[in-house]
Amino acid sequence: MKALVVQKYGGTSVGSLERIRHVAQWVAQSSAEQRNVVVVSAMAGQTNKLVEMASQMSERPDPESYDMLLASGEQVSCALLAMALKDLGLRAVPLLGFQAGLETSHHFSKARILKINPKILQSIVDQGAVPIVAGFQGFVSEGLKASKITTLGRGGSDTSAVAIAIAMKASRCDIFTDVDGVYTADPRIVPQARRIPRIRFDEMMELASLGAKVLHMRSVELAAKYQMPLRVLSSFDPQQGGTLLHSESLESPVVSAITSDHEEALLTIRMEESKAYFPNLYFKPLAEAGINVDVIVRSVADDQSMASISFTVPRDEGTKALELLKRNFPSENLQLKPESVVKVSIVGLGMRTHSGVAAQMFEVLAEKKIPVRLITTSEIKVSVLIDEPQKALAIQSLHAAFGLGQP
Amino acid sequence: MKALVVQKYGGTSVGSLERIRHVAQWVAQSSAEQRNVVVVSAMAGQTNKLVEMASQMSERPDPESYDMLLASGEQVSCALLAMALKDLGLRAVPLLGFQAGLETSHHFSKARILKINPKILQSIVDQGAVPIVAGFQGFVSEGLKASKITTLGRGGSDTSAVAIAIAMKASRCDIFTDVDGVYTADPRIVPQARRIPRIRFDEMMELASLGAKVLHMRSVELAAKYQMPLRVLSSFDPQQGGTLLHSESLESPVVSAITSDHEEALLTIRMEESKAYFPNLYFKPLAEAGINVDVIVRSVADDQSMASISFTVPRDEGTKALELLKRNFPSENLQLKPESVVKVSIVGLGMRTHSGVAAQMFEVLAEKKIPVRLITTSEIKVSVLIDEPQKALAIQSLHAAFGLGQP
Repeated sequence: MKALVVQKYGGTSVGSLERIRHVAQWVAQSSAEQRNVVVVSAMAGQTNKLVEMASQMSERPDPESYDMLLASGEQVSCALLAMALKDLGLRAVPLLGFQAGLETSHHFSKARILKINPKILQSIVDQGAVPIVAGFQGFVSEGLKASKITTLGRGGSDTSAVAIAIAMKASRCDIFTDVDGVYTADPRIVPQARRIPRIRFDEMMELASLGAKVLHMRSVELAAKYQMPLRVLSSFDPQQGGTLLHSESLESPVVSAITSDHEEALLTIRMEESKAYFPNLYFKPLAEAGINVDVIVRSVADDQSMASISFTVPRDEGTKALELLKRNFPSENLQLKPESVVKVSIVGLGMRTHSGVAAQMFEVLAEKKIPVRLITTSEIKVSVLIDEPQKALAIQSLHAAFGLGQP
Repeated sequence: MKALVVQKYGGTSVGSLERIRHVAQWVAQSSAEQRNVVVVSAMAGQTNKLVEMASQMSERPDPESYDMLLASGEQVSCALLAMALKDLGLRAVPLLGFQAGLETSHHFSKARILKINPKILQSIVDQGAVPIVAGFQGFVSEGLKASKITTLGRGGSDTSAVAIAIAMKASRCDIFTDVDGVYTADPRIVPQARRIPRIRFDEMMELASLGAKVLHMRSVELAAKYQMPLRVLSSFDPQQGGTLLHSESLESPVVSAITSDHEEALLTIRMEESKAYFPNLYFKPLAEAGINVDVIVRSVADDQSMASISFTVPRDEGTKALELLKRNFPSENLQLKPESVVKVSIVGLGMRTHSGVAAQMFEVLAEKKIPVRLITTSEIKVSVLIDEPQKALAIQSLHAAFGLGQP
C-alpha cells in the first residue's frame, strides 16, 4: 500500500487563487505515489485582516466569538483548495476542525489538541479521496450543550498537521512553506550557506530558539515526542526536497549550523558574592517591568569576594533596565555596555562526543580579532556574545571553519 | 415570563462594524422586554464576494466546497455581532448552523431544513443569554461519517429565522431589513403610499409574487403554514413598527395594496377552437427555449369557432418568442403587440366578500382613459395588463380610488 503522508500548506502557499491551483497540482502529482491528507492555513494576510476587524469591533473581543471569526480564514482556503482539486479530477473532501474530529481543550485562542478520531479521515482516504482539513482550528464538544469552535494559536496549522499525522500513524508530515528548508546559516549573511537535508529534532530545537524561524517549535516538539518524521519544504519548489527532521541516531556532523540573534544590550552588576547567590533579587524588578532577559552569566567571585552577573536585554530596553536597577539597587556597581552586542551560536549534535569544538570556535574568533564578551553553552550549542558590527564576519568565518559550505 | 422573539438581521443591517454595533444596541434594548434569539445574514456584499471567488477558482465549483465557502460569510457577521453584544454587557453565544442543531437535507446550495433541536438554543435563552445564530446554513449529519455543511439558498437566513421561531414556539419572528415594511404601493410611484401595519399571509403572498420583494416567499410560506407571526421592519428605524404578517381573520380592508410588474411583451395566437383545447402545444417550444411565460388568457371562441390565446413574456424576449412560434406554427395567425405592456394589480382579502371591486377598478381605469389589454383574476387579486406609459397614472388613480392614502 502507498505511504500515507500529511501535507500542510502555509499562508503564502495558498496566498492567491493562482497559488491554490499550484498547490492542487502538487497534491495531485504526489498522489500518484502516496496517499495524502492535506491541512491548510488561511490565505496569507487573511488572519491579520480578521484580527484587525475584531480589534476594530471591540477592545477586548469575546474569546469565543474571536475564535469563530478567525476560524473562517481556514474555512475559505480549505473550500477553495477542495474545489481546485476536484477540477483536477481528484476526489477531495473539505473538512473543518469539528468535521475532522479534532477535539481540543476549551482554552480559546490557545487550545491544546486533546484527541483526534482518525476514523473519519481514514475512511475518506480508504475510499481513495483526499481529505482537505482546515488547520489552526478544532472544537470542544460539551455533551448536550452546543459545541464550541476553538483555535490553536500561533503555528496552529503546523500543530494540526503533526497531530493528524500522529493520530493516523502516517509515514511522514510535510510542511510546505515559503522557504525550501533549514540552512547552515542565514544565507543573507553567508552566501555559501547550504540547505540541511536531514537534522535531528533536538538540533532543530536549538536552532529554532536561536531565530531560525522556519517551523513552529510546538509542532517540532510534538513530532519529536511521537517520533513523527517532519519535513519542511517549499511549496514554490517542492522538488528541492527540503529538510527532514528525524529522531534517528546516525553519525551527525560536529557542527550543523551557525545562527545569530537580534542586537541586544549587555548589562553587568557587580556585587558581594553573598548577594550573587540569590540573583532573583535583581531580575524580579525587570520581570515586573516586562523586560525580557535573554543570556544570563554569573561569574565566580574574585579575591575580594566580589562576583558579577551579566545579562542581555533587547537593545531598546538597555537604558530602561539600567535606570530601573539604579533605582532599586543604588549601592550596587552597575554597568551598561555602550555598544550593542549580538549572540552567535554554533549548533550540532556531534559536539556532545567531540571535545574541543568550543575551543575551535574561540580560536576562529580570535584569529579574526573578534572579542568575545560573554560565553554560554548547552549540550549541543555554544553561544558567544560579540559586538554587533562583527556579526557577519564571525558567522562567515565560523561557517567556513566548520566546513558547512561543503556538501 | 417575557415573550420569546426571533430577530433576523439582513445583510445591509450588519453591513459594517458601525451597523453591527447599532444592531447590538437594538438587541440589548429590546432584551429588556423580551427574550431574543438572533439570526444574522452575511455582511452586505460578502456573499457576492465569495461567489465571485468561487467562480474564479472553478467553472463548476464542487457543491460541498462551495457551501463551506459561502457559510464563512455568516460566520464572520455572527462572531462580530456576538463581540459587540458582549461589549454591551449582554451574554451572547455565537452559533454556526451545526452548533445550533439546524439539520438539513443533503442538497448543497438549496438544502431544506429537516429539523431543529430547540434544546440547545432554549438552554442558552434559559440562562439569560442571547444565542446569535449564523443564518443561511445548516448541516447534514451522516452518522459515523463527517458531517457536511449546507446552505439554504436565496433568502436562506429568513428561512433559518422562521424555522427557529417555529421550533422554539416563539411569540413572533422579526425580520430586520433596509425597508420599514410593506407598502400599499411603490412609494416611488405613489407618494401617498402608506406602510401596511398588518397584513394576512395570503395577501402577502399575492403581493410578493407581484414584485413587492420585501420578504422571501419561502419564509412567508413557512410562517403561514405554522401560523408564526412574522414582522418585517427596518433595522435603521425599528421604532416604526414595520408590517406584521399574521393569519388572523379580522375584518380586512377591501383592497390592501396596488402592485405592478416589469414591462412585458404581449403575444396573441388565433386558432380554431379545437386547437385551443390543448394549449400545451404552443407553450412547449417556449419552455424548451427557456422563455418565461407570465399571464396566459384564453378567449372563448367567436362565431366562426376561432379562439385566441394571449400571453406575456419578458419584454426583451417578445421577438424571439414570435420567431419561434412562427417556425413551429407557420399556418397560425400570430401577433406581437408592438408596445410593451405592464401588469397592474389590486390585492386584498376583502375582495372575497365584496362584489364589484373589479368593476370599480375597471371604472377608475376607464375614467383615466387607460385601455385594459387583458384581465386575469385570483381569489384576492385582480390584475390588468395596460400599456407601459400609463403605469404610473393607473397606480396613482387606483391608490386614491381605493382610499389607500388614508390611515
